[in-house]
Amino acid sequence: MTRAIQDTYPESLAWCYGCGRLNERGHHIRTVWDGDETVAIFTPEPWHIAVPGFVYGGVLASLVDCHSTGTAAAAAYRAARRAPGSEPALRFVTASLQVNYLKPTPLGVPLTIRARVTEIKDRKVVVESTVYAEGIATVTGKVVAVQIPDNFGQR
Amino acid sequence: MTRAIQDTYPESLAWCYGCGRLNERGHHIRTVWDGDETVAIFTPEPWHIAVPGFVYGGVLASLVDCHSTGTAAAAAYRAARRAPGSEPALRFVTASLQVNYLKPTPLGVPLTIRARVTEIKDRKVVVESTVYAEGIATVTGKVVAVQIPDNFGQR
Repeated sequence: MTRAIQDTYPESLAWCYGCGRLNERGHHIRTVWDGDETVAIFTPEPWHIAVPGFVYGGVLASLVDCHSTGTAAAAAYRAARRAPGSEPALRFVTASLQVNYLKPTPLGVPLTIRARVTEIKDRKVVVESTVYAEGIATVTGKVVAVQIPDNFGQR
Repeated sequence: MTRAIQDTYPESLAWCYGCGRLNERGHHIRTVWDGDETVAIFTPEPWHIAVPGFVYGGVLASLVDCHSTGTAAAAAYRAARRAPGSEPALRFVTASLQVNYLKPTPLGVPLTIRARVTEIKDRKVVVESTVYAEGIATVTGKVVAVQIPDNFGQR
């Protein structure tokens, strides 16, 4: 299996419910490069339903979210010409998340999400993405990701 | 316990991972009126983490999503001067979801989300919301909800 961006996160940042490899109950969303785009393949569980037969929007939002912050991290390493995962870690959090539900997403098939960086500047990366089910685009997303600030979590 | 909007959904529409009372693995988000606003209280599980100590953004997006579609349904019944849950069911899906993460949301405390309808017209309802942790606003959301079309799920 190709190494994903999330596989390179340091252990302290690998607990995310959406994409943390160490979160046993999480979704384990995994992002890899495909040329200038990134791609993740994710199959929702049978209980991830909105109405029977279709995927819950919150899970689709999670897919957009983690694939985009993963893409932001990967792009930041590329921009810095650094090896993914090298210290100090470039890890991003979501400042804003926009999800458009174009049509119902069928449950029971693998979903493919493809993303592209549309802006990268200082500590901010903008990522736009599309989710496909059986080749049909069902969701688009836009995430503004910011590098985790040194004072993260202080109030 | 006060009856929630989601308690009135017909059984066929009560399986949502975010708010369906019949989804045993779901979040069971419950929306009630408080004057002209709606409120839901939700305590994330210990594994719903972004980085240790803080709530995962995808779960916060789910909270915004289901509380807003629930609010849309409740508002549509009010606007129609009909009893909540009366047939034919007024049930909404999300057309678009916008979530702004103002600051990290601490894990381990009950979250309160309050929402208000800012537009209601024909089959469309716009809902704006704020999530609070320990009285501090950490997330704002905006959802465009549309009444489930008769041809939902046809492609």
